[in-house]
Amino acid sequence: MPSPLLFSINGIKIGTACAGIKQTLRDDLTLFEIAPASTGAAVFTRNAFCAAPVTVARQHLQQTSSPRFLLINSGNANAGTGERGLTEALACCEAVADLTGCALTEVLPFSTGVIGIALPVTKITAALPAAVANLQAQHWEQAARAIMTTDTIPKSYSVQTTIAGQSLTVSGIAKGAGMIKPNMATMLAFIATDAAIPAPLLHTCLQTAVDQTFNRITVDGDTSTNDACVLIATGQGEVSIDSANHPAYTPFCATITEACTHLAKAIIRDGEGATKFITVTVSEGSTATECLEVAYAIAHSPLVKTAFFASDPNWGRILAAVGRAGVPKLNINAVQIYLNEICIVNQGGVATSYTEEQGQQVMRQQDITIRVLLGQRGNCQETVYTCDFSYDYVKINAEYRT
Amino acid sequence: MPSPLLFSINGIKIGTACAGIKQTLRDDLTLFEIAPASTGAAVFTRNAFCAAPVTVARQHLQQTSSPRFLLINSGNANAGTGERGLTEALACCEAVADLTGCALTEVLPFSTGVIGIALPVTKITAALPAAVANLQAQHWEQAARAIMTTDTIPKSYSVQTTIAGQSLTVSGIAKGAGMIKPNMATMLAFIATDAAIPAPLLHTCLQTAVDQTFNRITVDGDTSTNDACVLIATGQGEVSIDSANHPAYTPFCATITEACTHLAKAIIRDGEGATKFITVTVSEGSTATECLEVAYAIAHSPLVKTAFFASDPNWGRILAAVGRAGVPKLNINAVQIYLNEICIVNQGGVATSYTEEQGQQVMRQQDITIRVLLGQRGNCQETVYTCDFSYDYVKINAEYRT
Repeated sequence: MPSPLLFSINGIKIGTACAGIKQTLRDDLTLFEIAPASTGAAVFTRNAFCAAPVTVARQHLQQTSSPRFLLINSGNANAGTGERGLTEALACCEAVADLTGCALTEVLPFSTGVIGIALPVTKITAALPAAVANLQAQHWEQAARAIMTTDTIPKSYSVQTTIAGQSLTVSGIAKGAGMIKPNMATMLAFIATDAAIPAPLLHTCLQTAVDQTFNRITVDGDTSTNDACVLIATGQGEVSIDSANHPAYTPFCATITEACTHLAKAIIRDGEGATKFITVTVSEGSTATECLEVAYAIAHSPLVKTAFFASDPNWGRILAAVGRAGVPKLNINAVQIYLNEICIVNQGGVATSYTEEQGQQVMRQQDITIRVLLGQRGNCQETVYTCDFSYDYVKINAEYRT
Repeated sequence: MPSPLLFSINGIKIGTACAGIKQTLRDDLTLFEIAPASTGAAVFTRNAFCAAPVTVARQHLQQTSSPRFLLINSGNANAGTGERGLTEALACCEAVADLTGCALTEVLPFSTGVIGIALPVTKITAALPAAVANLQAQHWEQAARAIMTTDTIPKSYSVQTTIAGQSLTVSGIAKGAGMIKPNMATMLAFIATDAAIPAPLLHTCLQTAVDQTFNRITVDGDTSTNDACVLIATGQGEVSIDSANHPAYTPFCATITEACTHLAKAIIRDGEGATKFITVTVSEGSTATECLEVAYAIAHSPLVKTAFFASDPNWGRILAAVGRAGVPKLNINAVQIYLNEICIVNQGGVATSYTEEQGQQVMRQQDITIRVLLGQRGNCQETVYTCDFSYDYVKINAEYRT
């Protein structure tokens, strides 16, 4: 069962330090040490302008599926930094390799923060010895804090469970509040387990989990340059999976998906300026794509999002978003829209049973589900998670650099 | 040449009245009387949940290309109102037909305002006689005000010019500030000319103009349920065009496009909460679609829009938007991004010549052009107009109904 505590994972140690990248006194540098013979999998942003550390981490993972260190800095994204950015990401990896005696390609770098500013390499390398000296198995909570940027709360998940009769531990942390609309990957998330599982299978498990979790959240529709999600399996626990047919594989994947779901939802709850958590479920679509397009049309609509901020049941904006999503041959008379359990739209207009009071009662809540039944020939369904749009969203993003 | 005055169009009279739909004392009802033998063309929203008046106006235009009256109310969109909405839109047309002796199908209805509230038909029919009594050729300015909703300034354009040696007059009005991302049509716009031109040719001319003007603006990415753009040719001036080969046809189309451009840009300048007018031009694309996708990725990015509100040259957000637009095989080293004349990005990162001071100087201006050169094999270019995202956008849309 999930726990407010973060369980240590045998084979993982974490050290944090303050490199002063953001000119504050809080830790902004995190180092994960991973025991030898662990396996690792990662998915990254599909943004064409991906950050230098994304390029380097991808290349290093092609050389080895057993990374020994993850180096993460917040406060600077090292994106939009051209050739120089690559050199600087490599310089940081080199510093870790020098200090610890591992190979350069066994270090994966991650950065998050402002785009387009040169990475302060000397600050990072100067703080590295402190992070190494600080390596401890129980530092998950500190890491969850050290990777934050505009996040207001640390995001973490931890579970000890039994699958196929054997004990399994999974812990993970994530960060992200703005520039959140992951595409084939996510914001920064680092998850580890004590199971043993070959890297290709671990990758399949991670990709499946991410597609239904981190790839289904949106704060502002802006896909980041730095998104990455890493899953490490140390093999120092009881569970050992050798193939997809192993009885523990399916429950293992379910546990990983549960961890990703929790972390992805935590990102939305902490969305920049967010006051509401909104689940958008679209069903009865001809295709999954059609359902997703409708869900994102709603989830990205600034008009829908500001209405939720105001707790105003201005359902016409939801109807307009469904209508503009471009579903081919949509029969609007077959469409039904619900706010939680309240039917607001059917027969092409407002439901006769609907009252403004019902709508307001739902809108006053903090967790709200919009359900759209498209009435197309099909059983496809998709769910997307988003948040509202508030004054504070504008404030945070108008003031981020200044 | 354009004029701050609005020229009357021979064959067009306009009456306005206060029906009290918005419970204010300002006029919210507008009636256009169109002389017999005029021709009319219109384009409408592609939102599947199009409003009842859109459905009725479309049907009536299929019966006759010589409408006699346009009836426009603000304060209520009559959208999301199902069968009842259709009945009520028709009832308003019927009232006009009864009062004036025209046929029902010669009346085109238009509504704009809140979605999903029943149209107050009795208020409208009660105010109609005052609008009829008030019909005058010089009431364009009053109409521009009466069709406003969250608009803060009336939008109009008027020109007297000479084409192919003959005098031509064009006048038009438009409204719109939010829920602006027209698709194949526009917000409400009414344009009239004294030229004579057959309806099919008039429609081609309008569609071409709209595609490059109203269909290239976005405030918030939300395509309205009520968008409509109408062009009337009364044939009471000197210009008479009988075919696309007529020497006046091309300059006529250019004049109409100019009118649409002016009105479309006026909508963006008055975008909800807008403090900046932003032109996004994307060139060197393989296809027009590719250019448009990049332009809209930038124009819809809440992060880009809030940075412009803050006058913060946070160009990394523009780079991230270009990168996430999904251009196939984008070579980021060939991409160049400019703010006005300042090169901010080339060679995959910040331009070496760029300084923060240069960026700030551009960002302090009110009219800013973002130019993206994709460096793909192709000469395609597209331009989109948008505005920034401010506290007032949230304020306006959080308070719209309450």
